Amino acid sequence: MPLISPSRRLRRTPFSEGVEAAGVKGYTVYNHMLLPTFFASVEEDYHHLKEAVQVWDVACERQVELRGPDAARLMQMLTPRDLRGMLPGRCFYVPIVDETGGMLNDPVAVKLAEDRWWISIADSDLMFWVKGIASGYRLDVLIDEPDVSPLAVQGPRSDDLMARVFGEAVRDIKFFRFGMFDFQGRSLVVARSGYSKQGGFEIYVEGSDLGMPLWNALMEAGRDLDVRAGCPNGIERVEGGLLSYGNDMTDDNTPHECGLGRFCDTQTAIGCMGRDALLRVAKEGPVQQIRAIDIGGAAVPPCDRAWPIMSGTKKIGQVTSAAWSPDFKTNVAIGMVRMTHWDDGTSVRVETSQGPRDAVVREAFWA
Amino acid sequence: MPLISPSRRLRRTPFSEGVEAAGVKGYTVYNHMLLPTFFASVEEDYHHLKEAVQVWDVACERQVELRGPDAARLMQMLTPRDLRGMLPGRCFYVPIVDETGGMLNDPVAVKLAEDRWWISIADSDLMFWVKGIASGYRLDVLIDEPDVSPLAVQGPRSDDLMARVFGEAVRDIKFFRFGMFDFQGRSLVVARSGYSKQGGFEIYVEGSDLGMPLWNALMEAGRDLDVRAGCPNGIERVEGGLLSYGNDMTDDNTPHECGLGRFCDTQTAIGCMGRDALLRVAKEGPVQQIRAIDIGGAAVPPCDRAWPIMSGTKKIGQVTSAAWSPDFKTNVAIGMVRMTHWDDGTSVRVETSQGPRDAVVREAFWA
Repeated sequence: MPLISPSRRLRRTPFSEGVEAAGVKGYTVYNHMLLPTFFASVEEDYHHLKEAVQVWDVACERQVELRGPDAARLMQMLTPRDLRGMLPGRCFYVPIVDETGGMLNDPVAVKLAEDRWWISIADSDLMFWVKGIASGYRLDVLIDEPDVSPLAVQGPRSDDLMARVFGEAVRDIKFFRFGMFDFQGRSLVVARSGYSKQGGFEIYVEGSDLGMPLWNALMEAGRDLDVRAGCPNGIERVEGGLLSYGNDMTDDNTPHECGLGRFCDTQTAIGCMGRDALLRVAKEGPVQQIRAIDIGGAAVPPCDRAWPIMSGTKKIGQVTSAAWSPDFKTNVAIGMVRMTHWDDGTSVRVETSQGPRDAVVREAFWA
Repeated sequence: MPLISPSRRLRRTPFSEGVEAAGVKGYTVYNHMLLPTFFASVEEDYHHLKEAVQVWDVACERQVELRGPDAARLMQMLTPRDLRGMLPGRCFYVPIVDETGGMLNDPVAVKLAEDRWWISIADSDLMFWVKGIASGYRLDVLIDEPDVSPLAVQGPRSDDLMARVFGEAVRDIKFFRFGMFDFQGRSLVVARSGYSKQGGFEIYVEGSDLGMPLWNALMEAGRDLDVRAGCPNGIERVEGGLLSYGNDMTDDNTPHECGLGRFCDTQTAIGCMGRDALLRVAKEGPVQQIRAIDIGGAAVPPCDRAWPIMSGTKKIGQVTSAAWSPDFKTNVAIGMVRMTHWDDGTSVRVETSQGPRDAVVREAFWA
């Protein structure tokens, strides 16, 4: 594997010092920022994540902050999910679409107050779209990227670790809700969320200066819990069917194709850009959709490009993420499959970068 | 240095196969795409670039295509550079600014026709901004990313190599102009441009299927010219003062701060977003500006973060790119310096990530 060349453009994070001290071995780039990909090895990290607790530098989940009288109106213009019932203190997973219904991002919207929101973004410069819309529609709202860097605590021992640093009350945070918790005299948003299926929290660290003190406090407090530095795991997230923008979906795809139709209330999401296009899709249904794909044989190579899914000589989809799963003893994968072949149990062939493999389309993910 | 982890999200290019066969050793990520950073070593690549000719995979310079009756109007909304005198067949370096005059990108605009433009972008999702503006102002224009991947030919022997593949007429292309040239029966935009000071061309390869045939044709034709796979060189571009968006400037900076005031005709660029803000800046002048910085001592470490520039205990700027220059026998650097210290010859101190260094502010770059 080639090296990643350092430059200021690939931004470091408030936790980089801790990540380096923990011996990070691989990186990817996400929102122009370094995101660790493994420490011991992807497999070793995977087992540890499922058994203990990890601290993840996910500062690359940058925030787009909306502030002002038109903040809520703008937020609703961005997504087909109906936000009218959303109260402050809630996090909503919101597909963001352009005027044709193509996905621009799949962030988590954090409602701090009626006139103040954070959009915790996946890998695209969503702020450019948001600013363009706000400018074009002359909305009364300030938009910027604040100095807020999420730090995730993930794994079955997350509650125990978090309680030691933030107090017992963190245990009461419900899924996709947040509370305000003190650390060194500063009040931070702590949400029960994260990019794994192992449970845990995301701490929205406001102020870069707080990064390493919090990192160290968590590492210190969790020593007997076997806490380690970790990161979103390329095996675990595929087992769990957690999609990755840029990998499993792009602006070519509608939310419905991505299996995110349940987050679209297009009828009632008045003002949403792309509403007309999505009403059409909602009516007719998508012709292709995200599916779990079980790829037979030995471990597949890294999925560094879309692999065609074939039925005979006909291309009926593509695999966009794949990894050998030690727990499920197969290659778990995520792909987009045409409706003619998306039923559970359909046999297909995946053209990996190292040759064809037999595979089976699955209705459900593994975990 | 850690490894870069492969994934579909870090897009491969039509030339990746050639890049890999040539033994690429390092990558960065640019517009969600792989960009090689060195082959033999940054220093060896540097010497070769200045003596011979290299073929560069710069597919990551993605195009934003504007097509339709409002294309020219939209293009002028994006930049303070007056585009009225620009004829088809010309390339213009255009600062792109938001409504406050902050830089969103510093692309090259390629005018194919009155109603058809390519914006050949630096590292940010400029398409999001362009689409937002077009949507908000209800412009009659289609915007997308076409299947166009630039391949650069750079170095003193570029003309000779290009003439062998595209015919003698390529020699007549003037700087920042382009012509249409045939390759395997397809007509391609070939411009005299590129991200080095060694001269050369950029071929806008339309159609991914043409990527490897063209790569191979250039390698074949240039064997006796010592043609090699190369890439934008981290030393050479700093010597020449070629700025890098995300490194040397961000949306915090105005074009004037970046030394791009000569590309701003803000008075006459009617309709440009951010015009009011830039008129103010043009009137008062910037309070900080890009400068060449000569850093003394042995080779500096990789500049992976902004290094403060100090005068006594006062921060008066920051270095954002730096490298040891074998030819100039010093550390060449690019920084943003406050007006109190930006005069040629001013002595300052640069706080690198491995300690302080004496340095001198220079009016001019090295090459």
